[in-house]
Formats: sequence, C-alpha cells, structure tokens
Amino acid sequence: MKIAIMGFGTVGSGVGEILVSQKEEMTKKAGEPIEVKYILDLRDFPDSPFKCFTKNFEDILNDDEVGLVVEAMGGTVPAYDFTKRLLTKGKHVITSNKELVAKHGTELLTIAREKSINYLFEASVGGGIPIIRPLISSLTGSGINSVVGILNGTTNYILTQMIDKGKTFEEALSEAQEKGYSEKDPTNDIEGFDTCRKTAILASLAFGKAIDSEKIPTEGITKVTLEDTMYAEKFSCSVKLIGECRKAENGVFARVCPAFVPYSNLISNVNGVFNGIMVDGDEVGSVMFYGRGAGKLPTASAVVSDVVDAVKHKDTNIRILWTDAPEGYLLDGKDCKYKFYLRLKGDMNGFENAVSIADGEFAVITDEITEAEIEEIAKGHEIIGKMRVIG
Amino acid sequence: MKIAIMGFGTVGSGVGEILVSQKEEMTKKAGEPIEVKYILDLRDFPDSPFKCFTKNFEDILNDDEVGLVVEAMGGTVPAYDFTKRLLTKGKHVITSNKELVAKHGTELLTIAREKSINYLFEASVGGGIPIIRPLISSLTGSGINSVVGILNGTTNYILTQMIDKGKTFEEALSEAQEKGYSEKDPTNDIEGFDTCRKTAILASLAFGKAIDSEKIPTEGITKVTLEDTMYAEKFSCSVKLIGECRKAENGVFARVCPAFVPYSNLISNVNGVFNGIMVDGDEVGSVMFYGRGAGKLPTASAVVSDVVDAVKHKDTNIRILWTDAPEGYLLDGKDCKYKFYLRLKGDMNGFENAVSIADGEFAVITDEITEAEIEEIAKGHEIIGKMRVIG
Repeated sequence: MKIAIMGFGTVGSGVGEILVSQKEEMTKKAGEPIEVKYILDLRDFPDSPFKCFTKNFEDILNDDEVGLVVEAMGGTVPAYDFTKRLLTKGKHVITSNKELVAKHGTELLTIAREKSINYLFEASVGGGIPIIRPLISSLTGSGINSVVGILNGTTNYILTQMIDKGKTFEEALSEAQEKGYSEKDPTNDIEGFDTCRKTAILASLAFGKAIDSEKIPTEGITKVTLEDTMYAEKFSCSVKLIGECRKAENGVFARVCPAFVPYSNLISNVNGVFNGIMVDGDEVGSVMFYGRGAGKLPTASAVVSDVVDAVKHKDTNIRILWTDAPEGYLLDGKDCKYKFYLRLKGDMNGFENAVSIADGEFAVITDEITEAEIEEIAKGHEIIGKMRVIG
Repeated sequence: MKIAIMGFGTVGSGVGEILVSQKEEMTKKAGEPIEVKYILDLRDFPDSPFKCFTKNFEDILNDDEVGLVVEAMGGTVPAYDFTKRLLTKGKHVITSNKELVAKHGTELLTIAREKSINYLFEASVGGGIPIIRPLISSLTGSGINSVVGILNGTTNYILTQMIDKGKTFEEALSEAQEKGYSEKDPTNDIEGFDTCRKTAILASLAFGKAIDSEKIPTEGITKVTLEDTMYAEKFSCSVKLIGECRKAENGVFARVCPAFVPYSNLISNVNGVFNGIMVDGDEVGSVMFYGRGAGKLPTASAVVSDVVDAVKHKDTNIRILWTDAPEGYLLDGKDCKYKFYLRLKGDMNGFENAVSIADGEFAVITDEITEAEIEEIAKGHEIIGKMRVIG
C-alpha cells in the first residue's frame, strides 16, 4: 500500500525511519509492501534520505494511489480538517494526535465506520504501550469498571525526582527540561492537560461513549510540595499524577489529580518517565500495562503497528465503540468517596494514626469520605495539604 | 453466530456464564448475537441453566449452523483431533489449551489460514491478561528482542509466601493447595512445565517461528530454599520462576528457571497469584503486562474476547506469523552470559561484596559469565545454591 506522512517532526520522522529500517519485516507482517509516497511538511529537509516531500496537502488528498495517511502534525488546525477530508475520500488515517482524538474522535470514527476504513490512534495514549487495542479487542470479554493511570512521563519523572532525590518541584522541572523530557512550555504536562486528554480517550473507549476532555476536573502537580512527598513516604505511599475514570450507576465519572498511591499497588512502583495504566474489569480483575509513555521510537512504533493493522484491514472497519454520550453522562463526582491525605496545622492530639514531620503540623489519612466532609474531619485545623488516596 | 463449547469445566462454564450475563453487551461488541447451540461434555449437568448438552462430537462437527467452537477440554486427546476436524470444516476454534497450542500450533494455524478462519488462544497464556494479541498486532511496529515473564500464578504464590512470610517450600505449597491455587498434582506447576509451554507459545509468536516446548531447558522451584530467598533479600532481589526467550544472531534462546530479579525491575514486584510479562523491543523499549494469570472468570473473559474477535473477523484470517523453524533455530544457550547468585560453603575471605546469613557459608553475585565459568568463580568452595540473576 502507498501511504503518506503528514508532519515530519519527532513522530513522523520516526515512522519513516522504522518503515525503511524494517521494510522486510513490515511487508511480512502486513502481507504487502508499505511504501511512503509523500511526506507533507512546510519545512525543507534537504538532508533526509526521503525525496518525496510536498508542501501541498492536495497532492495527497487527490492521489488515488494513496490508501493510508499518517497524521503526525499535532494540534487541531489544520489536522482536523485534513483528517476529515482524507477519511471522507476513503483513506485510512493513523494518528498520534491525542488533542484531535479527544476533541473530534466521535465524528472522525463515524466517518471511518461509514466508509469501511479505519481511524486508529494507539500512539495517542501511552506512547508505545499497547492500551487502545487491548481496550477495544482484548478486554471485550469483561465489563470494565475503571481505568486508572499514570499517563504523562514528564510529571512522573518530576514526582519521582522529588520523592527519590528530595528535589523541589522547581528543581525537578528544570532538570526534566534540560534532559528534554519536557517541552519549553511545560504547561500541558504540569497542569495535567495532557493527562486529561488521554483520560478522555481511555474513558470514551472503555465505556463506549464520548467524554469531553474539557469537562473533566483537572488538577496538575504544581502545588505538590516536598513535604507532601515526605508524608506520603510515612504512609507507605508514592505521589502520582493520576488520570482516572470509573463507571457509576448513571454514567461515568472522570478526574485528573495528584494522588497518594500505596506501595502495595503496582502503579506506585511505576517511576521516572514510564507510564502505567491499570484497568479493572468485572471478570478479568486488575490488569496493568506499563512502558515508555513517550519518545520518538516508542511512539512511532505504535503508529507503525496501527499502519500494519489498517493494511491488514484494508476493506474492513475495525469496530470501535465510541458514540455520542447523552446529556449528563459525565458525572461531577462530588458524591464519590475517597480516602484523603490531609496535612493540617496545629496539634495532632485527638487524631488517630497521625504523623508529623515538623513542629506545629501533622498529617492523617481519612476513612472514605466525600470532598464535602473534609472540613468536618479537619476539626477547625487549617488545611495546608490535601490529596486523594487511590487504592 | 451460533457456537459450541467443548468441555464444561472451569473455563468452559465460565465462558457460558459470561455469554449469558453480558448478552447485550457482547452483541453490541461483536455486531451480532452469539448463541450457544451445543455444549459437549461426557458428564451430566442437570442443574445447569443450559439445556443444550451433547455427548456426541459429531453433532457439532456436522451442524453447518455452528460457525465457531470454544475448545476448553484441555490436554491433546481428543482435543487435537477435534480441533483439526473443526478447522478443516471451516469452523473457527477458540481455546485456552496451552498444551495443544504449544504442541500443534503450527499445524492448526496453517489450517485456519488456508480456510480463512481463525484459531485464537489469548487465554492460553496469562489468563485474562492481553498478551497474545499485543504480540501479534500491537507490537508489530517494533522488533522484539526478548520476552521475560512470571507465567504461573501457583509458583509465584508459593515464592511470595516464602519471601514475605518465611514459609518453607513445602508449607507454602500445601497452603496453595488448600486455597485451590494449585491442582492436587502440582507437578506441572512446580516443575515448570506449565511455564515452559507458555514460554514456547510466547517465543513462537514473538519471533514468528515454532519453538518446541519439549526442547526448552526447564527447571522448577522445588529446589529453591528459604535460605536462597533470604540471600535474595540481602541483594535487593526477589526470587521468581521466570520463562524467557531472547533473539540471538542465528536463532532464539529460551529457558525456564527460578531467578533473582532486582527490586528495580517491575517484574520483581509482581506478587502472589499474579503474572507479569515484560516484552523488550528495539523501538518500543520495555513494555509490561500484568494481571491475574489464572482463575475461572479472568481466563473465560479472554476466551470470550477471542470469540468476539473471531465473529468480527468471520471471513478473514487474522494473520499470525508462526511457521516451522529451521533445524538448529532453538539455541542451547550455553554461551549466554548471566550474572549468577552463588551460595557457597566456607569462608568469604577473598570474595568481593559477599554476604552471609549463617556461619560457614556465604553468597555472592558474579559478573556476567557463562554457566561453564561458575566453578572457576567458586574457587573450590562447595556450591550449595545457584540461580541466574535477571535484569
């Protein structure tokens, strides 16, 4: 099959590399050769071994020989318009673009279904970790109750450095930037927006109905202090930025926030730039997926796997249940009960199992309560730190 | 689609249960209703809600309405003959039978390919953990270098009890039997045969060529002592029964043996009846899959996922690369280098980084050496314990 790559940045060039270096292997796996006919990018790449660059999207759109397009542009403009037109023309589209999938997944999947082609996005969550396909085709024998994950490598690296090396948030962030783990503008990572989009995608797949990422309550890690991580250790917990979604009686509840995770939960041992995603099912129990959540080749390898799968399903839509959700389907979660870590000012007298790392303050882990009940538990003490504890 | 279930034991009855309790959900996922028309078992089940039992295999084989059969009989007689005849008749077969897949996978997959149907076996390794499908369709964008796993829940439970509770092997084994985690005859588990079959299946899929399970060097956990686990702790390691396969220059190397695994490797934190499988790929890096490796509903849910997938691929063979291997493809591994844990009698003078838990003995972890070099390292000291150390 002849294909095109749109966007020749980190992921796009990685896809090109793998398709060339593993040409023979990929032909065997896909059942036919996969040939890159166009690469769309506004920049020039005079030193690239590829000689098929174009700056004109129409070249790809109007070439009937091109059966599949890899969209590695990122963002929604012009990726949304391009993807829609390609799918409408009957070309498979494979993407790593989580923003686009989170925002327009329902519509783009519907077009793919109608045209009996595929819009696949394994690389949009968890880099090279297979999580999308297991959700749509391996865990179908089990009703899914929840998905809880560490979905962003940058923030997990920062938190790991704070916990293991005693670095402050600011020190750990600049180290992550120096090592190239974080973009110059780290907002999407540290404010939790990246985790939020991935959570929306996982929730939409796990429960079959679209979750709007903009409506998921999202808190990043900028307020996590070194003291919080020290208290976590006292309670045999790690601090992790968690994206979670859970099935409830009348809908689905989703949230992104930093949380205490007990050492006994394997997620707690997922450190550094790694991601870990725990799926809990009725029949299957707890299943975890772990690996590098980002990086050029891991992400590109996930894109290439989707390319191979689409070539294998040339004339068949791989059924992905993801439809519009009814009004009120995403619940606000204020009735959800959690254990909470509370760091309080004052004297710990009268608090059971309290611990302290400095004079004039202490911390407790509550029983399972709603957020509204926290003030009552604090008994008038000023709250200077607070996080959910996740099983 | 109308289907049959052969063998109404733990897994077969679990499949029936899920198909009934999640009928609506499964219809949505498969795109059509899945109806159990026959259940083959020599026993009677007067209290079962199912009323479609038969003792005659020919009923299923000759009924053209039956498009798919779940083989949950176990063993190779008569499962091999039945499966072959069903596939030849053009009926999809889904199985959890690792013995049959390990022994006759190549032949049965070839028939399925020729008939454009499917022989699927997600449940044969790792219970409900999706590992087979990721290997054949999600990790295709990355060359695989190795698969290393804890593949047997019973032995992992026993080792965890020894490490965490200080129980002897014998005590832990009888506890596993009391709890129903181990069969009455635990040979297959504790001698490593079960892990060996699963390793053969994973190796055959990961590298595309059949590995004969009977030729994989296999050592169980019966010789692991409490002292070994105490030394492991001193070296910040767990003791795990590991099935591994690795790509080498001229073939593949595979082995099953108990090993030290450093705490820093996530596999080391996979405890109790859980399984964990680490796949290492050129592009994707390390990816781990974790969950319950056995049990009625986890295993049955994996079978049901395969049923749904086969219904979705009614007229298409899902390409699985698994062909005959050339002579000498499975290497004997005697040149493979490992670090070794050695427990030695005598005085630790002259040994670097040695530790001791009792008078007159000590232990070391060697540099990377071949098995042949061990005697030299031991410098004439009697070896009373020995295990590989795995990354």
